Amino acid sequence: MHLFYQPALSPTDTSGQLSDDDARHATRTLRLGPGEAILVTNGRGNRFGSVITRADNKGCAFRIETVETVEPRPFSVRICVAPTKNLDRIEWFVEKAVELGIEQISFFYGQHSERRVLKLERIEKIAVAAMKQSLQSWLPQLDEGLPLTKLISQSVDGQCFIAHLPDDGQAPHLFHAASPTQKYTVLIGPEGDFSAQEVQQVIAAGFQLVTLGPNRLRTETAALSACQCLNLLNVVNSVNL
Amino acid sequence: MHLFYQPALSPTDTSGQLSDDDARHATRTLRLGPGEAILVTNGRGNRFGSVITRADNKGCAFRIETVETVEPRPFSVRICVAPTKNLDRIEWFVEKAVELGIEQISFFYGQHSERRVLKLERIEKIAVAAMKQSLQSWLPQLDEGLPLTKLISQSVDGQCFIAHLPDDGQAPHLFHAASPTQKYTVLIGPEGDFSAQEVQQVIAAGFQLVTLGPNRLRTETAALSACQCLNLLNVVNSVNL
Repeated sequence: MHLFYQPALSPTDTSGQLSDDDARHATRTLRLGPGEAILVTNGRGNRFGSVITRADNKGCAFRIETVETVEPRPFSVRICVAPTKNLDRIEWFVEKAVELGIEQISFFYGQHSERRVLKLERIEKIAVAAMKQSLQSWLPQLDEGLPLTKLISQSVDGQCFIAHLPDDGQAPHLFHAASPTQKYTVLIGPEGDFSAQEVQQVIAAGFQLVTLGPNRLRTETAALSACQCLNLLNVVNSVNL
Repeated sequence: MHLFYQPALSPTDTSGQLSDDDARHATRTLRLGPGEAILVTNGRGNRFGSVITRADNKGCAFRIETVETVEPRPFSVRICVAPTKNLDRIEWFVEKAVELGIEQISFFYGQHSERRVLKLERIEKIAVAAMKQSLQSWLPQLDEGLPLTKLISQSVDGQCFIAHLPDDGQAPHLFHAASPTQKYTVLIGPEGDFSAQEVQQVIAAGFQLVTLGPNRLRTETAALSACQCLNLLNVVNSVNL
C-alpha cells in the first residue's frame, strides 16, 4: 500500500487531508480515488490506516480507520557531516541514510569546508521521500548547519565519535569502539578533512577518534558507512532491526 | 600522493606510460612535471612508486623505483545486482561499493527488470576512478549482464545469498547468516523485485534467503548495504579491514 506524509496528524484525529504534493501524487500519478485505502504517517511514529473520502483538484481528504504506533529504535544514530562541494553527494547521503535508518542529521562547517551554505528545505524533501519510499514512520531530525566549534559546544549525551585517521594511524574501528543500544553521534569531516586544531578541539570536547576502514572515503561515503556501521552493530544484538 | 592506473604494468617493469586520461589529469589538472613522484597501480595488487621522466603533449612517462604488493582481502564480496531503470543509481552503487571494498560486481536481468542493457565501459570508468580515489590497488571484476537463470547456473563456491523477504517474513539478517573470511555472493533484485518463480529457482540453486533489515530498500541501497554488511562482518574478526 502507498504511504503518504502528513505531519499535522495527531493520534486522536479521525480524518485528514494530504499535502498538495501528496494529493497530486495520489490522484494524478497513482490515480487513487474515493474508497481506496492508503497509509499516512505523521513522521512521529504514528501510522494511520485511512480511506480516501474525496479526491479532486481541491485536494485529497481521507478518513482514519486505524492508528498504529511504531516505537523508536532501541538506539539512535546522529551523523554530523560537513556539506560537500557537490550538493548531489550530500543529498545522496541523506536519501540513503534515511532509507537505511538514522535518527538525526546535523550539518556543520569546518575550517576546510568549501561549502558554507545549505538549503535545508530541499534536504527535508529528500528525507521525506526516502522515509515514504522505505515505508518508515519516523522522519529523522535535520539540523541547520553550524560552525564546528558551536556544534561541539552543545551538550551531547551518549557515545560521541570523530571519524579521522590520526597521523600515527592508530584508531579503533567505529564498529569496535561503539557499544550496542546507545545514542551515537559521529562527526564526519569535509572534503578537506578536519584541521589538526579541529581534531584537538573535538577530542577535548569528549569525542573519541575512530576509523571507518583502510580506504580513503569521500565525505558522503564515510557518513553513510558510519551510519550503516552503527545500524549493523545493533543487528548483532537484535534480529529485529 | 596521487594514484594513477595503468593496467599494462607488471611487477618486473622498470618504467611505464600513463594512459591518455591519466596523463592529461597529471600534467594539465595537477600540473605534475619531470622529477615529481607519483603512485601507479595496475589494479591487480601492485603499487609502483614512480618518478615522472617526461610530461608533454605526447603523454606522461615515468620511471618505477619501488614495487609494493598489496594482498587481496582475506574474504571476497561479490554482489550480483539487476541494473536500475535510472542509470545514476547503479553507477552510484558501483562508485560507493568500490570505495568501501568489493571484489566483484555482476549484473543480471530478472523477469521484473525494466533495464536490460548496460554499458560496462562507463561502469568500469567509474570503478577505476573510485579505486584511485580511495587509494586501492585492486580493481574489482565487473561482469556483463546475464539472465538470472544463466547467472545462477554458473558454479559458485563460497556462501551464496539472495536478499529477499519471503511472504512469511521469516529470513535471517545477512549479518547473522554469513560467517567471516568466506567468499560471498549476494543476489539483489530489480526494482520490481524477484518473481516468486525466480526466488524458487535461486533457492534450488543453493542460495540462502536473507534480509537486510526492516526497511524497504531501493535496489542500489540494498546492494551497497549487503556489501557493507559483509565488510563489517569481517571487521568483527579483524581490525585490519
